[in-house]
Amino acid sequence: MSRKTIDISCDMGEGFGRWQLGSTDDEQLMKLISSANIATGFHAGDPNLMDLSVRRAIERNVAIGAHPGFQDLQGFGRRKIDASATEMLNDIVYQMGALREFARLHGKPLQHVKPHGALYMALAADEAASLLFVNTMRRVAPDTFIYCMGASETYKIASQVGQPVVREFYADREYDTTGKIVFTRKPDGYNPQKAAERVVRACLEGKVRPVGGDDIVVGLESVCVHSDTPGSVELLIAIREALTASGIEIASPSVAAARAAA
Amino acid sequence: MSRKTIDISCDMGEGFGRWQLGSTDDEQLMKLISSANIATGFHAGDPNLMDLSVRRAIERNVAIGAHPGFQDLQGFGRRKIDASATEMLNDIVYQMGALREFARLHGKPLQHVKPHGALYMALAADEAASLLFVNTMRRVAPDTFIYCMGASETYKIASQVGQPVVREFYADREYDTTGKIVFTRKPDGYNPQKAAERVVRACLEGKVRPVGGDDIVVGLESVCVHSDTPGSVELLIAIREALTASGIEIASPSVAAARAAA
Amino acid sequence: MSRKTIDISCDMGEGFGRWQLGSTDDEQLMKLISSANIATGFHAGDPNLMDLSVRRAIERNVAIGAHPGFQDLQGFGRRKIDASATEMLNDIVYQMGALREFARLHGKPLQHVKPHGALYMALAADEAASLLFVNTMRRVAPDTFIYCMGASETYKIASQVGQPVVREFYADREYDTTGKIVFTRKPDGYNPQKAAERVVRACLEGKVRPVGGDDIVVGLESVCVHSDTPGSVELLIAIREALTASGIEIASPSVAAARAAA
Amino acid sequence: MSRKTIDISCDMGEGFGRWQLGSTDDEQLMKLISSANIATGFHAGDPNLMDLSVRRAIERNVAIGAHPGFQDLQGFGRRKIDASATEMLNDIVYQMGALREFARLHGKPLQHVKPHGALYMALAADEAASLLFVNTMRRVAPDTFIYCMGASETYKIASQVGQPVVREFYADREYDTTGKIVFTRKPDGYNPQKAAERVVRACLEGKVRPVGGDDIVVGLESVCVHSDTPGSVELLIAIREALTASGIEIASPSVAAARAAA
Repeated sequence: MSRKTIDISCDMGEGFGRWQLGSTDDEQLMKLISSANIATGFHAGDPNLMDLSVRRAIERNVAIGAHPGFQDLQGFGRRKIDASATEMLNDIVYQMGALREFARLHGKPLQHVKPHGALYMALAADEAASLLFVNTMRRVAPDTFIYCMGASETYKIASQVGQPVVREFYADREYDTTGKIVFTRKPDGYNPQKAAERVVRACLEGKVRPVGGDDIVVGLESVCVHSDTPGSVELLIAIREALTASGIEIASPSVAAARAAA
Repeated sequence: MSRKTIDISCDMGEGFGRWQLGSTDDEQLMKLISSANIATGFHAGDPNLMDLSVRRAIERNVAIGAHPGFQDLQGFGRRKIDASATEMLNDIVYQMGALREFARLHGKPLQHVKPHGALYMALAADEAASLLFVNTMRRVAPDTFIYCMGASETYKIASQVGQPVVREFYADREYDTTGKIVFTRKPDGYNPQKAAERVVRACLEGKVRPVGGDDIVVGLESVCVHSDTPGSVELLIAIREALTASGIEIASPSVAAARAAA
Repeated sequence: MSRKTIDISCDMGEGFGRWQLGSTDDEQLMKLISSANIATGFHAGDPNLMDLSVRRAIERNVAIGAHPGFQDLQGFGRRKIDASATEMLNDIVYQMGALREFARLHGKPLQHVKPHGALYMALAADEAASLLFVNTMRRVAPDTFIYCMGASETYKIASQVGQPVVREFYADREYDTTGKIVFTRKPDGYNPQKAAERVVRACLEGKVRPVGGDDIVVGLESVCVHSDTPGSVELLIAIREALTASGIEIASPSVAAARAAA
Repeated sequence: MSRKTIDISCDMGEGFGRWQLGSTDDEQLMKLISSANIATGFHAGDPNLMDLSVRRAIERNVAIGAHPGFQDLQGFGRRKIDASATEMLNDIVYQMGALREFARLHGKPLQHVKPHGALYMALAADEAASLLFVNTMRRVAPDTFIYCMGASETYKIASQVGQPVVREFYADREYDTTGKIVFTRKPDGYNPQKAAERVVRACLEGKVRPVGGDDIVVGLESVCVHSDTPGSVELLIAIREALTASGIEIASPSVAAARAAA
């Protein structure tokens, strides 16, 4: 169950126009990750910022992913919109294409797609929408990874039909006994040392201690830190050090897959 | 100077959400054109409508083009926004990528890009912005046609550097003596018979009679009719009949190029 | 229980920029109603259209109401957004103030506020949000009517605290046995004669026959017809004739209140 | 020509949703000003932030003003949109009403309206638009101050027709020899001591030294500091101290007018 390679991703480019996220330092974060989830304009991000974020990722040899959200700048894509599966998918195709064009402009492929916030959660819980998502990806981007939670319809379906898929482990969130993320509690999530230990344990033992219960089993190919988590830079540094000290290499899934194929 | 093949294009999918353009009947128009300029969300169009428009175009064997505009739903992209060349280009890349993804989803390439309204005119008049536009197209879509006016910086630069380019002739607008479109006058533009005669003459003789002057020379590879021109369906039927009667074939530039290469 | 006076309202100004609702003829409808629910920019409507709609209402001696919705042009405010009560209220205050300013510009007061679509339903079902809504109205507009369903938290609270309130009866929708609107069935709702009979019976007997059940009791001070209901003009004409034939006068609640006070 | 009372204003609430302006500390700035220009949602600001900003202003006894801009979140309202005078005015009425409703909710009047960025400059240069603006204000808010530059059509017309008007002096910008603001140069504008000296001199002598020329005459009733000017807090502290040391009192125009009337 132990892994020798793990991906680290952050949400990137989550400003808009003149605005940035207060606590976020994209340039600093970009040095510490292997994959970037770049906001694509609906919950955050705009064409100028997407161009900048893609260039920054390439400079740091970070793999490029699209991070589409609900069309809700006001709510930062964290409010569920009662959209149909078709509407959600069309929103994803639109935003994914937009980002892929910037990647192409700078000579890079799109490594992955990771829906944002309420859209991520809506897909995770909805079998029909996940099926439409995965089938759409099979048609437009059969080699592009879907990032999702292990405990999600999205993961179940993507792995069944053979779409490349990556399970995320949230370093700055806690889990409940069913493997779901606990949004409201995060004291330990923000502690760099504890977060780093949790990540290493998850990688090596495939286990995490949930809130109010015994160890649960987790599978993961990627560790996610929210760029707007307070102290996200320190958190990432601690995680990187702990992973390296444990002999686990940090690499994007596309790099890992290329090596495995070689 | 006479041509045996000409393209006919219309703007398509220029609604938003529940709204459509009052006088527009996209399904009807789609039967009468060879290329569709599909609105990409900034001045009109939304992900659901883009998906529908791409599918409609494919059903009718119509070539697919992106129709990006300024981010101005309120003004339908017809109000100039004082944006920098870089901002204009990033807006185009974003929207073009979004539409290209829907084309890919349905198995078709992106034939062309035609900026909309005030963005089209801003590029036409701006050498630096046209240069950035053409150079960006060389990188992301070297085989994709740029649609523009013959009397534009865009055309000059695109033809110099070898980017595929198509000059548009507006069937429902009149011209001034410098070859520029007259926006405020259009009595003859809306008369199907006169419009059809002007189009045929432009194709066969390369000439058009401007407002208040003698014939001017025009070059054209495509005839454009605005979908929201009153009577656009009748206009297109008259133009198609007149072209056919004159032995001119209607074909998209990609079809024409494929034949020329064969 | 019989009423001698009833209000008739329609949603008005539900276009945006160049767009109008396809089947809607605001000028025609404005002649047939006593109160207008004017869209305020978030789900439909824009400053220019709001100005026009207010002027049209005044020309026809129609009372002016604000029709605020969720910020969702794409979904026409018919998709629920998972917003907090405070967010919903701030959205209402913003839009209500915007419309009130146009009313003031043209010398008229704001008669009422009627939330739109998913926002209307979200408030109806949510006691805390209805309480915040009503209390906010008490502070900013103690003489302004709230339009809502009789079967709603909004009505319960508004009538408790003494905020002017109007119960709506939907002429073009059917009811279930609990007094809730049935959204998916409407064959009879679109039949002018049947709709007119239902309205008159509701006014005179305070009863309506729901789908799949026996008569239920309804209270109403206003009859609503959706402007985008197919045949809305014919529906309104039939309702007006039937009401007049039954000796029921059509008047806005502000006119009715002024008379009652005189 | 010397004044004993001067207003100090700042732009406030210029975030959106989760975003704030990086260098801005609204709570700190609110302690240092007498009037707040509160962003109203088109270039910045949203209903929740408007509510918060109004409450903050009231806590600090700061007068409330509306700060409407072009509908351009992407460009922060600093890009001119080629809108008609009517469109500009409807945008202003809409936004002004929205803010006035929040002021009413918290029991305060709207002291002033100050258009933002490109809209401010477009009105300043356009006689017809300024006339429409002033005439509209006469109808909806005859006691509300218009904030504008002394060298503007807006000022000329407002003072002619008797609409309350305030000329602004930009403490953090330099002037050219015609009295216009120089946008690109600002080394001295950001120096607290020099800015404070310029402000005091303008108040006492009615003069300012422009870039590349001799003293010009300036009239002013208000000093403006942009909230996003680097070091805006220090700038305001220096200005307040210098004004107080020179015996000039800081008060909003509404307070000054109330005293003059008493």
